[in-house]
Amino acid sequence: MKNSKRTSRRNLLRMGAAAMGGGLLATQKALALETPGSLGTPLGPYGDRSPYEKAVRFTRQSKTPETGSSFTPLADSIGTLTPSSLHYERHHAGIPNIDPAQHRLVIHGMVDRPLSLSVADIRRLPSQTRVMVLECGGNSGSEWAATTGPDVQRSFGLASCSEWTGVPLSLLLKEVGVKPGASWVIAEGADACRMERSVPLAKAIDDALIAYGQNGEALRPAQGYPMRLLLPGWEGNTNVKWLHSLKLTDQPYMARDETAKYSDLMPDGKARIFTYRMEAKSVITYPSGGQTLPGPGLYELTGLAWSGSGRIERVEITTDGGKSWVNAQLHEPRLPIAFTRFRLPFRFDGHEAVIASRGTDETGYVQPSREALIAVRGTNSGYHFNGMKFWKVHANGTVTNVEV
Amino acid sequence: MKNSKRTSRRNLLRMGAAAMGGGLLATQKALALETPGSLGTPLGPYGDRSPYEKAVRFTRQSKTPETGSSFTPLADSIGTLTPSSLHYERHHAGIPNIDPAQHRLVIHGMVDRPLSLSVADIRRLPSQTRVMVLECGGNSGSEWAATTGPDVQRSFGLASCSEWTGVPLSLLLKEVGVKPGASWVIAEGADACRMERSVPLAKAIDDALIAYGQNGEALRPAQGYPMRLLLPGWEGNTNVKWLHSLKLTDQPYMARDETAKYSDLMPDGKARIFTYRMEAKSVITYPSGGQTLPGPGLYELTGLAWSGSGRIERVEITTDGGKSWVNAQLHEPRLPIAFTRFRLPFRFDGHEAVIASRGTDETGYVQPSREALIAVRGTNSGYHFNGMKFWKVHANGTVTNVEV
Repeated sequence: MKNSKRTSRRNLLRMGAAAMGGGLLATQKALALETPGSLGTPLGPYGDRSPYEKAVRFTRQSKTPETGSSFTPLADSIGTLTPSSLHYERHHAGIPNIDPAQHRLVIHGMVDRPLSLSVADIRRLPSQTRVMVLECGGNSGSEWAATTGPDVQRSFGLASCSEWTGVPLSLLLKEVGVKPGASWVIAEGADACRMERSVPLAKAIDDALIAYGQNGEALRPAQGYPMRLLLPGWEGNTNVKWLHSLKLTDQPYMARDETAKYSDLMPDGKARIFTYRMEAKSVITYPSGGQTLPGPGLYELTGLAWSGSGRIERVEITTDGGKSWVNAQLHEPRLPIAFTRFRLPFRFDGHEAVIASRGTDETGYVQPSREALIAVRGTNSGYHFNGMKFWKVHANGTVTNVEV
Repeated sequence: MKNSKRTSRRNLLRMGAAAMGGGLLATQKALALETPGSLGTPLGPYGDRSPYEKAVRFTRQSKTPETGSSFTPLADSIGTLTPSSLHYERHHAGIPNIDPAQHRLVIHGMVDRPLSLSVADIRRLPSQTRVMVLECGGNSGSEWAATTGPDVQRSFGLASCSEWTGVPLSLLLKEVGVKPGASWVIAEGADACRMERSVPLAKAIDDALIAYGQNGEALRPAQGYPMRLLLPGWEGNTNVKWLHSLKLTDQPYMARDETAKYSDLMPDGKARIFTYRMEAKSVITYPSGGQTLPGPGLYELTGLAWSGSGRIERVEITTDGGKSWVNAQLHEPRLPIAFTRFRLPFRFDGHEAVIASRGTDETGYVQPSREALIAVRGTNSGYHFNGMKFWKVHANGTVTNVEV
């Protein structure tokens, strides 16, 4: 870390060149590798990834795979977006098969002029597009316990980042005319369990979107096709998928998913509810648990940081178990409430190293240690874990989870 | 266009509400539409789009579908990114099936220390991520002729926008040590025809990337898996796919794809070659050829603008065949050499309207009319068409191509 960035990069390259063996010999071997003259696959209507690429979402074995979570393989992520095919899932009754020609969004309750909008109606309205992270309130939930996640997918993989497009909910609320006294919006999905959440009216007016686009095409079924609620920075569960009803009320519904679930049990036995916002968080994705460094040398350490409160302002890295910290390089543009990729040259000299990242957002909020978090919230919170994640790089190059 | 933006939006909504029929009746009907209680599809490893979504790339019928183009369905695009599955294709010998464990990138020729790098070597190096448009030099080639493209897919669809991640080529060139006198880099792909292009060394040093990531995962096979050259702002053909060789030379190779193709025949019978940069361009995607407006009312006109020279600074819209122009609203952030989405309220009153967009980039360059372009380049250029595209909205709401 004492080298200038330029020097570090040159060393990194030298190491790479040394690791791969001689230059010219490999050159000649490489250029003879493929036999030209054999035509490849023709043009096609809708492309697929390479059969050599195997990254998939992780799902725990279950007798009821319609209710549960699947985790984004963050260790395989490149750049800042999550491919729609690998966006994390959290379903309560499976993915409904919705015909967009039949689907309607109804806005009713304490309004002057109830509205029923088709998908075509929604798509015709003025829209906004923004890159935004979605994170399940239960992401990293296993980290509250003594036994923590062995890799970044299982410990932090209920977070994904997409380009979303939709209609501002404020625009629809102006049209229906919210009645005096209304202060909540009850959002309900069209899945079998009619998953619903209570959303304060202020949030609905502030920056909520009715999203129908994801990464340049229609929302995927697993993310709410044909439309979902998007509440920037708020726990995933409130971003109701397969949205078909918004009811204006003067009180929350105390629905199943905001009482039996998605509430945080505190050490004094009381529970926090309506803890919507996801706070600043970061994790190193390389090197991370389950990976192996091929040998001593220079590497590029990298990972992802995000905050439900806005932009990531700083990410610090420790390679000595938290004794000292240095600033990582942040990928630009740093968009609010989006994944920010961070990078730092990392010299592995064959000695054990304990590494972690610590994110700070534009409000000045600093990602806490697990200990600091537990000191306040105990170990039964279940939701909203955003503590730092430590990985141990062993002398032989293997990387495992570690509690510090 | 005389209304304030706020008023326009309210009218747009009123129109939407009126178009869909009564409020409460529809409400009750809608909420009864789906029968709850039936579990949906379980969690899955790698997701798909909805079976109701049918947008595909367009390919002309051909007896040799390994050589040709497929066009991105821009009229169906949402936001600013292109889904990888719908990224345009231009292949000369089909898509090779490359095992990344076998593939190598060789840098040789006028260098001090030739290098042969594996995919793992490349992925280990410091990387950059940027959202960037790629456009085939032959995009809109049919617009040179009298008969122009009937829809936006066939006339402008050889352009797509992705988040790309890769290693700066400058970094690799420093490592190999470019010999005095070297001024060109010959980039060669590993496809059957060994497609190659000559790239000035200055561009290779300036901002070229060896890309291995696209939209958060590995590059798709149709876009060059496991790695391709990226030359920001330059015609697609020079962004050599399946890249396996970079040879430093003191002259261009005058390869097949920069002499027999990708050179522009001028009116005086001479040809321009090495016309790399794609200039500012824009097109309205809604309403556009082949679409039908359901009736008079307020709509949101939208489209895409981009420039190989940097950011889009302004997009103007005409709805009267070019007599008057107004500024469209531009989606932020406007990233350099990326799709910029533009929007404008559009009142269709049941009378014929001739609409077009005109983009201006940060250098001050203004997208020309087709006539102005032809006055300089004639009609045999074949490549680098960036003239304005006019659509005619007929009194019955149908939209067709038109030459103005």
